[in-house]
Amino acid sequence: MKKSLGAKSIVYPTPILVVGTYDERGKPNVMTVAWGGICCSSPPCVAVALRKATYTYGNIVERKAFTVNIPSERFVREIDYFGITSGRDEDKFSKTGLTPIKSGLVDAPYIQEFPFILECKLLQRIEIGLHTQFIGNILDIKVDTAVLDEKGIIDIGKLRPMLYAPECRAYHGVGSFLGRAFSIGQEL
Amino acid sequence: MKKSLGAKSIVYPTPILVVGTYDERGKPNVMTVAWGGICCSSPPCVAVALRKATYTYGNIVERKAFTVNIPSERFVREIDYFGITSGRDEDKFSKTGLTPIKSGLVDAPYIQEFPFILECKLLQRIEIGLHTQFIGNILDIKVDTAVLDEKGIIDIGKLRPMLYAPECRAYHGVGSFLGRAFSIGQEL
Repeated sequence: MKKSLGAKSIVYPTPILVVGTYDERGKPNVMTVAWGGICCSSPPCVAVALRKATYTYGNIVERKAFTVNIPSERFVREIDYFGITSGRDEDKFSKTGLTPIKSGLVDAPYIQEFPFILECKLLQRIEIGLHTQFIGNILDIKVDTAVLDEKGIIDIGKLRPMLYAPECRAYHGVGSFLGRAFSIGQEL
Repeated sequence: MKKSLGAKSIVYPTPILVVGTYDERGKPNVMTVAWGGICCSSPPCVAVALRKATYTYGNIVERKAFTVNIPSERFVREIDYFGITSGRDEDKFSKTGLTPIKSGLVDAPYIQEFPFILECKLLQRIEIGLHTQFIGNILDIKVDTAVLDEKGIIDIGKLRPMLYAPECRAYHGVGSFLGRAFSIGQEL
Protein backbone atom coordinates (compact mmCIF):
# COMPACT_ATOMS: atom_id res chain seq x y z
CA MET A 1 0.00 0.00 0.00
CA LYS A 2 1.26 3.46 -0.87
CA LYS A 3 1.06 6.56 1.26
CA SER A 4 1.28 10.16 0.01
CA LEU A 5 4.15 12.22 1.47
CA GLY A 6 3.12 15.41 -0.32
CA ALA A 7 5.22 17.63 -2.60
CA LYS A 8 8.79 17.17 -1.36
CA SER A 9 12.26 17.18 -2.91
CA ILE A 10 13.61 13.70 -2.20
CA VAL A 11 15.41 11.02 -4.18
CA TYR A 12 17.58 8.17 -2.87
CA PRO A 13 20.51 8.34 -2.94
CA THR A 14 21.93 11.79 -3.60
CA PRO A 15 25.63 12.40 -4.20
CA ILE A 16 27.77 14.57 -1.94
CA LEU A 17 29.29 17.27 -4.14
CA VAL A 18 31.68 19.74 -2.53
CA VAL A 19 31.72 22.88 -4.68
CA GLY A 20 34.97 24.90 -4.69
CA THR A 21 35.08 28.61 -5.62
CA TYR A 22 37.06 31.81 -5.09
CA ASP A 23 35.43 34.91 -3.65
CA GLU A 24 36.04 38.45 -4.92
CA ARG A 25 39.22 38.75 -2.85
CA GLY A 26 40.54 35.39 -4.01
CA LYS A 27 39.73 33.54 -0.79
CA PRO A 28 38.99 29.86 -1.52
CA ASN A 29 35.66 28.52 -0.29
CA VAL A 30 33.84 25.20 -0.37
CA MET A 31 30.25 24.18 0.24
CA THR A 32 28.51 20.82 0.23
CA VAL A 33 25.65 20.26 -2.20
CA ALA A 34 23.35 17.25 -2.40
CA TRP A 35 21.14 18.68 -5.16
CA GLY A 36 23.12 17.96 -8.32
CA GLY A 37 24.63 15.42 -10.66
CA ILE A 38 25.75 14.77 -14.22
CA CYS A 39 23.41 16.36 -16.78
CA CYS A 40 25.12 15.80 -20.14
CA SER A 41 27.68 13.44 -21.68
CA SER A 42 28.73 15.65 -24.60
CA PRO A 43 29.87 18.21 -23.70
CA PRO A 44 30.44 16.57 -20.30
CA CYS A 45 28.48 18.63 -17.79
CA VAL A 46 27.57 18.58 -14.12
CA ALA A 47 24.74 20.50 -12.46
CA VAL A 48 24.79 21.88 -8.92
CA ALA A 49 21.80 23.64 -7.37
CA LEU A 50 22.34 26.37 -4.77
CA ARG A 51 20.29 28.96 -2.95
CA LYS A 52 21.02 32.60 -3.85
CA ALA A 53 21.77 33.24 -0.18
CA THR A 54 24.91 31.08 -0.25
CA TYR A 55 28.37 32.60 -0.47
CA THR A 56 29.16 30.19 -3.31
CA TYR A 57 26.32 31.61 -5.45
CA GLY A 58 27.98 35.00 -5.84
CA ASN A 59 31.37 33.40 -6.34
CA ILE A 60 30.20 31.32 -9.30
CA VAL A 61 28.33 34.24 -10.87
CA GLU A 62 31.49 36.37 -10.56
CA ARG A 63 34.19 33.86 -11.50
CA LYS A 64 32.14 31.73 -13.93
CA ALA A 65 33.91 28.62 -12.70
CA PHE A 66 33.80 26.02 -9.94
CA THR A 67 35.20 22.65 -9.00
CA VAL A 68 33.29 19.62 -7.75
CA ASN A 69 35.20 17.64 -5.14
CA ILE A 70 34.07 14.10 -4.28
CA PRO A 71 35.02 13.04 -0.75
CA SER A 72 35.99 9.65 0.63
CA GLU A 73 34.21 8.35 3.73
CA ARG A 74 36.92 9.57 6.07
CA PHE A 75 35.93 13.18 5.35
CA VAL A 76 32.37 12.81 6.68
CA ARG A 77 32.90 15.43 9.41
CA GLU A 78 34.43 17.91 6.98
CA ILE A 79 31.69 17.66 4.35
CA ASP A 80 28.98 18.08 6.97
CA TYR A 81 30.81 21.12 8.34
CA PHE A 82 31.09 22.54 4.79
CA GLY A 83 27.30 22.30 4.53
CA ILE A 84 26.33 23.90 7.84
CA THR A 85 28.65 26.94 7.83
CA SER A 86 29.07 29.85 5.42
CA GLY A 87 32.31 31.09 3.85
CA ARG A 88 31.08 34.58 4.79
CA ASP A 89 31.70 33.76 8.44
CA GLU A 90 34.50 31.20 8.44
CA ASP A 91 37.60 30.18 6.55
CA LYS A 92 36.63 26.57 5.96
CA PHE A 93 40.07 25.53 4.74
CA SER A 94 41.98 26.77 7.77
CA LYS A 95 39.32 25.33 10.10
CA THR A 96 39.61 21.84 8.60
CA GLY A 97 43.30 21.91 7.72
CA LEU A 98 42.49 20.91 4.14
CA THR A 99 44.55 22.37 1.29
CA PRO A 100 43.15 24.56 -1.52
CA ILE A 101 44.93 24.10 -4.87
CA LYS A 102 44.38 26.57 -7.69
CA SER A 103 43.07 24.77 -10.76
CA GLY A 104 45.26 25.21 -13.81
CA LEU A 105 42.20 25.11 -16.07
CA VAL A 106 39.49 27.18 -14.40
CA ASP A 107 39.32 30.09 -11.96
CA ALA A 108 38.50 27.96 -8.91
CA PRO A 109 40.28 25.96 -6.20
CA TYR A 110 40.05 22.25 -5.50
CA ILE A 111 40.73 20.24 -2.35
CA GLN A 112 44.08 18.47 -2.55
CA GLU A 113 43.10 15.76 -0.05
CA PHE A 114 39.88 14.76 -1.86
CA PRO A 115 40.34 11.87 -4.30
CA PHE A 116 38.13 12.86 -7.24
CA ILE A 117 37.95 16.39 -8.71
CA LEU A 118 35.94 17.94 -11.56
CA GLU A 119 37.17 21.27 -12.96
CA CYS A 120 34.21 23.16 -14.43
CA LYS A 121 33.60 26.25 -16.52
CA LEU A 122 30.14 27.80 -16.05
CA LEU A 123 27.96 27.05 -19.05
CA GLN A 124 24.41 27.93 -18.00
CA ARG A 125 22.59 29.39 -15.03
CA ILE A 126 18.98 28.26 -14.65
CA GLU A 127 16.65 30.04 -12.25
CA ILE A 128 14.15 27.52 -10.88
CA GLY A 129 12.85 28.88 -7.59
CA LEU A 130 14.56 28.87 -4.21
CA HIS A 131 17.46 27.14 -5.94
CA THR A 132 19.49 28.22 -8.96
CA GLN A 133 21.04 25.50 -11.04
CA PHE A 134 24.54 26.06 -12.35
CA ILE A 135 25.57 23.84 -15.24
CA GLY A 136 29.33 23.46 -15.50
CA ASN A 137 31.25 22.13 -18.48
CA ILE A 138 33.71 19.56 -17.07
CA LEU A 139 37.09 20.39 -18.61
CA ASP A 140 39.03 17.71 -16.75
CA ILE A 141 38.75 15.13 -13.99
CA LYS A 142 41.68 14.65 -11.66
CA VAL A 143 41.84 11.52 -9.56
CA ASP A 144 44.22 10.19 -6.92
CA THR A 145 46.26 7.37 -8.46
CA ALA A 146 45.75 5.48 -5.18
CA VAL A 147 42.06 4.86 -6.03
CA LEU A 148 42.77 3.36 -9.48
CA ASP A 149 43.07 -0.36 -10.13
CA GLU A 150 45.90 -1.94 -12.13
CA LYS A 151 44.08 -1.12 -15.40
CA GLY A 152 43.72 2.55 -14.47
CA ILE A 153 39.97 2.27 -13.78
CA ILE A 154 38.36 3.72 -10.63
CA ASP A 155 38.17 1.11 -7.87
CA ILE A 156 35.04 2.03 -5.93
CA GLY A 157 36.31 0.08 -2.90
CA LYS A 158 39.36 2.34 -2.79
CA LEU A 159 37.54 5.59 -3.66
CA ARG A 160 34.91 4.91 -0.96
CA PRO A 161 32.54 7.74 -1.89
CA MET A 162 29.62 8.61 0.37
CA LEU A 163 25.97 9.19 -0.30
CA TYR A 164 23.33 11.26 1.42
CA ALA A 165 19.84 10.11 2.39
CA PRO A 166 17.51 13.15 2.58
CA GLU A 167 14.80 13.18 5.26
CA CYS A 168 16.77 10.46 7.10
CA ARG A 169 19.51 13.13 7.32
CA ALA A 170 22.13 10.40 7.18
CA TYR A 171 25.42 9.78 5.38
CA HIS A 172 26.17 6.25 4.23
CA GLY A 173 28.97 4.45 2.47
CA VAL A 174 28.66 2.40 -0.70
CA GLY A 175 27.36 -1.12 -0.07
CA SER A 176 27.77 -4.47 -1.74
CA PHE A 177 28.03 -5.08 -5.47
CA LEU A 178 24.65 -6.03 -6.96
CA GLY A 179 25.31 -6.44 -10.65
CA ARG A 180 27.05 -5.32 -13.80
CA ALA A 181 25.38 -2.47 -15.72
CA PHE A 182 24.44 -2.92 -19.41
CA SER A 183 24.70 -6.64 -18.70
CA ILE A 184 22.58 -8.08 -15.86
CA GLY A 185 19.36 -6.90 -17.56
CA GLN A 186 20.03 -9.18 -20.51
CA GLU A 187 19.04 -12.12 -18.29
CA LEU A 188 15.40 -11.05 -18.65
CA MET B 1 49.42 12.12 -6.65
CA LYS B 2 46.62 13.04 -9.03
CA LYS B 3 46.18 11.82 -12.58
CA SER B 4 44.15 13.53 -15.30
CA LEU B 5 41.29 11.45 -16.73
CA GLY B 6 40.31 14.08 -19.30
CA ALA B 7 36.90 15.67 -19.87
CA LYS B 8 34.40 13.02 -18.77
CA SER B 9 30.95 12.97 -17.20
CA ILE B 10 31.44 11.10 -13.93
CA VAL B 11 30.40 11.61 -10.32
CA TYR B 12 30.09 9.00 -7.55
CA PRO B 13 27.51 7.91 -6.77
CA THR B 14 24.66 8.55 -9.18
CA PRO B 15 21.05 7.67 -8.38
CA ILE B 16 19.02 5.20 -10.43
CA LEU B 17 15.92 7.04 -11.61
CA VAL B 18 13.36 5.12 -13.63
CA VAL B 19 11.36 7.61 -15.69
CA GLY B 20 7.76 6.67 -16.49
CA THR B 21 5.85 8.17 -19.45
CA TYR B 22 2.98 7.49 -21.86
CA ASP B 23 3.56 7.48 -25.61
CA GLU B 24 1.18 9.04 -28.13
CA ARG B 25 -1.02 5.94 -28.13
CA GLY B 26 -1.14 5.80 -24.34
CA LYS B 27 1.32 2.90 -24.02
CA PRO B 28 3.23 3.15 -20.73
CA ASN B 29 7.02 3.16 -20.98
CA VAL B 30 9.92 3.34 -18.54
CA MET B 31 13.61 4.08 -18.95
CA THR B 32 16.49 4.15 -16.48
CA VAL B 33 18.42 7.39 -16.05
CA ALA B 34 21.57 7.94 -14.01
CA TRP B 35 22.01 11.58 -15.01
CA GLY B 36 19.63 13.40 -12.72
CA GLY B 37 18.67 14.41 -9.21
CA ILE B 38 16.89 17.01 -7.13
CA CYS B 39 17.46 20.56 -8.41
CA CYS B 40 15.20 22.75 -6.26
CA SER B 41 13.49 22.61 -2.85
CA SER B 42 10.79 25.20 -3.52
CA PRO B 43 9.04 24.43 -5.75
CA PRO B 44 10.26 20.85 -5.24
CA CYS B 45 11.86 19.81 -8.53
CA VAL B 46 13.79 16.90 -9.97
CA ALA B 47 15.93 16.94 -13.12
CA VAL B 48 16.42 14.03 -15.52
CA ALA B 49 18.74 14.24 -18.53
CA LEU B 50 17.95 12.22 -21.66
CA ARG B 51 19.20 11.94 -25.21
CA LYS B 52 16.80 13.15 -27.91
CA ALA B 53 17.02 9.69 -29.48
CA THR B 54 15.20 8.04 -26.58
CA TYR B 55 11.53 7.12 -26.79
CA THR B 56 10.97 8.85 -23.46
CA TYR B 57 12.17 12.20 -24.85
CA GLY B 58 9.24 12.51 -27.26
CA ASN B 59 6.83 11.26 -24.63
CA ILE B 60 7.79 13.98 -22.13
CA VAL B 61 7.68 16.70 -24.79
CA GLU B 62 4.20 15.54 -25.83
CA ARG B 63 2.64 14.77 -22.44
CA LYS B 64 4.52 17.39 -20.36
CA ALA B 65 4.68 14.96 -17.44
CA PHE B 66 6.67 12.04 -16.09
CA THR B 67 7.14 9.97 -12.97
CA VAL B 68 10.41 9.06 -11.28
CA ASN B 69 10.40 5.57 -9.79
CA ILE B 70 13.09 4.60 -7.28
CA PRO B 71 13.79 0.86 -7.21
CA SER B 72 14.78 -1.41 -4.36
CA GLU B 73 17.80 -3.70 -4.78
CA ARG B 74 15.69 -6.67 -5.80
CA PHE B 75 14.84 -4.92 -9.08
CA VAL B 76 18.46 -4.72 -10.29
CA ARG B 77 17.76 -6.86 -13.40
CA GLU B 78 14.68 -4.86 -14.31
CA ILE B 79 16.31 -1.43 -14.05
CA ASP B 80 19.28 -2.56 -16.14
CA TYR B 81 16.89 -3.96 -18.75
CA PHE B 82 14.96 -0.63 -18.74
CA GLY B 83 18.23 1.09 -19.61
CA ILE B 84 19.42 -1.14 -22.44
CA THR B 85 16.19 -1.49 -24.42
CA SER B 86 13.87 1.04 -26.08
CA GLY B 87 10.12 1.36 -25.67
CA ARG B 88 10.01 1.69 -29.47
CA ASP B 89 10.95 -1.98 -29.77
CA GLU B 90 9.60 -3.63 -26.64
CA ASP B 91 6.77 -3.42 -24.13
CA LYS B 92 8.92 -3.17 -21.01
CA PHE B 93 6.03 -3.71 -18.63
CA SER B 94 4.81 -6.97 -20.15
CA LYS B 95 8.39 -8.22 -20.46
CA THR B 96 9.12 -7.68 -16.74
CA GLY B 97 5.64 -8.39 -15.40
CA LEU B 98 5.63 -5.07 -13.55
CA THR B 99 2.40 -3.10 -13.28
CA PRO B 100 1.85 0.41 -14.72
CA ILE B 101 -0.52 2.57 -12.65
CA LYS B 102 -1.94 5.78 -14.08
CA SER B 103 -1.02 8.71 -11.85
CA GLY B 104 -4.02 10.61 -10.56
CA LEU B 105 -2.04 13.86 -10.66
CA VAL B 106 -0.05 13.89 -13.89
CA ASP B 107 -0.35 12.35 -17.35
CA ALA B 108 2.18 9.57 -16.71
CA PRO B 109 2.30 6.04 -15.30
CA TYR B 110 4.23 4.80 -12.29
CA ILE B 111 5.44 1.32 -11.34
CA GLN B 112 3.23 -0.22 -8.67
CA GLU B 113 5.97 -2.57 -7.37
CA PHE B 114 8.58 0.19 -6.87
CA PRO B 115 8.61 1.61 -3.34
CA PHE B 116 9.19 5.34 -3.95
CA ILE B 117 7.45 7.39 -6.64
CA LEU B 118 7.67 11.06 -7.68
CA GLU B 119 4.81 12.44 -9.81
CA CYS B 120 6.11 15.33 -11.92
CA LYS B 121 4.72 18.01 -14.16
CA LEU B 122 7.20 19.33 -16.76
CA LEU B 123 8.45 22.77 -15.75
CA GLN B 124 11.47 23.46 -17.99
CA ARG B 125 13.35 21.82 -20.84
CA ILE B 126 17.04 22.74 -21.03
CA GLU B 127 19.03 21.95 -24.15
CA ILE B 128 22.62 21.27 -23.15
CA GLY B 129 24.20 19.13 -25.86
CA LEU B 130 23.76 15.41 -26.46
CA HIS B 131 21.45 15.43 -23.45
CA THR B 132 18.35 17.49 -22.77
CA GLN B 133 17.51 18.13 -19.17
CA PHE B 134 13.86 17.99 -18.17
CA ILE B 135 12.99 19.72 -14.92
CA GLY B 136 9.86 18.35 -13.32
CA ASN B 137 7.84 19.95 -10.56
CA ILE B 138 7.21 17.20 -7.98
CA LEU B 139 3.48 17.33 -7.18
CA ASP B 140 3.51 14.36 -4.82
CA ILE B 141 5.66 11.53 -3.52
CA LYS B 142 4.06 8.14 -2.97
CA VAL B 143 5.85 5.61 -0.84
CA ASP B 144 5.19 2.02 0.21
CA THR B 145 4.12 2.02 3.85
CA ALA B 146 6.34 -1.07 4.32
CA VAL B 147 9.50 1.10 4.01
CA LEU B 148 8.45 3.60 6.71
CA ASP B 149 9.52 3.36 10.33
CA GLU B 150 7.11 3.67 13.28
CA LYS B 151 7.32 7.49 13.06
CA GLY B 152 6.43 7.51 9.36
CA ILE B 153 9.97 8.37 8.23
CA ILE B 154 11.73 6.52 5.41
CA ASP B 155 13.81 3.62 6.76
CA ILE B 156 16.72 3.36 4.32
CA GLY B 157 17.37 -0.22 5.45
CA LYS B 158 13.86 -1.15 4.34
CA LEU B 159 13.80 0.98 1.17
CA ARG B 160 17.17 -0.47 0.06
CA PRO B 161 17.75 1.90 -2.88
CA MET B 162 20.59 1.23 -5.31
CA LEU B 163 23.28 3.45 -6.72
CA TYR B 164 25.23 3.40 -9.94
CA ALA B 165 28.99 3.76 -10.32
CA PRO B 166 29.80 5.12 -13.81
CA GLU B 167 32.94 3.86 -15.57
CA CYS B 168 32.93 0.89 -13.16
CA ARG B 169 29.54 0.06 -14.76
CA ALA B 170 28.38 -1.40 -11.47
CA TYR B 171 25.26 -1.27 -9.32
CA HIS B 172 25.71 -1.24 -5.55
CA GLY B 173 23.51 -1.18 -2.49
CA VAL B 174 23.65 1.41 0.28
CA GLY B 175 26.41 0.72 2.80
CA SER B 176 26.92 1.38 6.47
CA PHE B 177 25.79 4.49 8.33
CA LEU B 178 28.64 7.03 8.64
CA GLY B 179 27.10 9.97 10.45
CA ARG B 180 24.16 12.26 11.02
CA ALA B 181 23.85 15.21 8.61
CA PHE B 182 23.68 18.79 9.97
CA SER B 183 25.24 17.37 13.12
CA ILE B 184 28.51 15.42 12.81
CA GLY B 185 30.27 18.48 11.33
CA GLN B 186 29.73 20.38 14.56
CA GLU B 187 32.47 18.25 16.11
CA LEU B 188 35.02 20.29 14.16
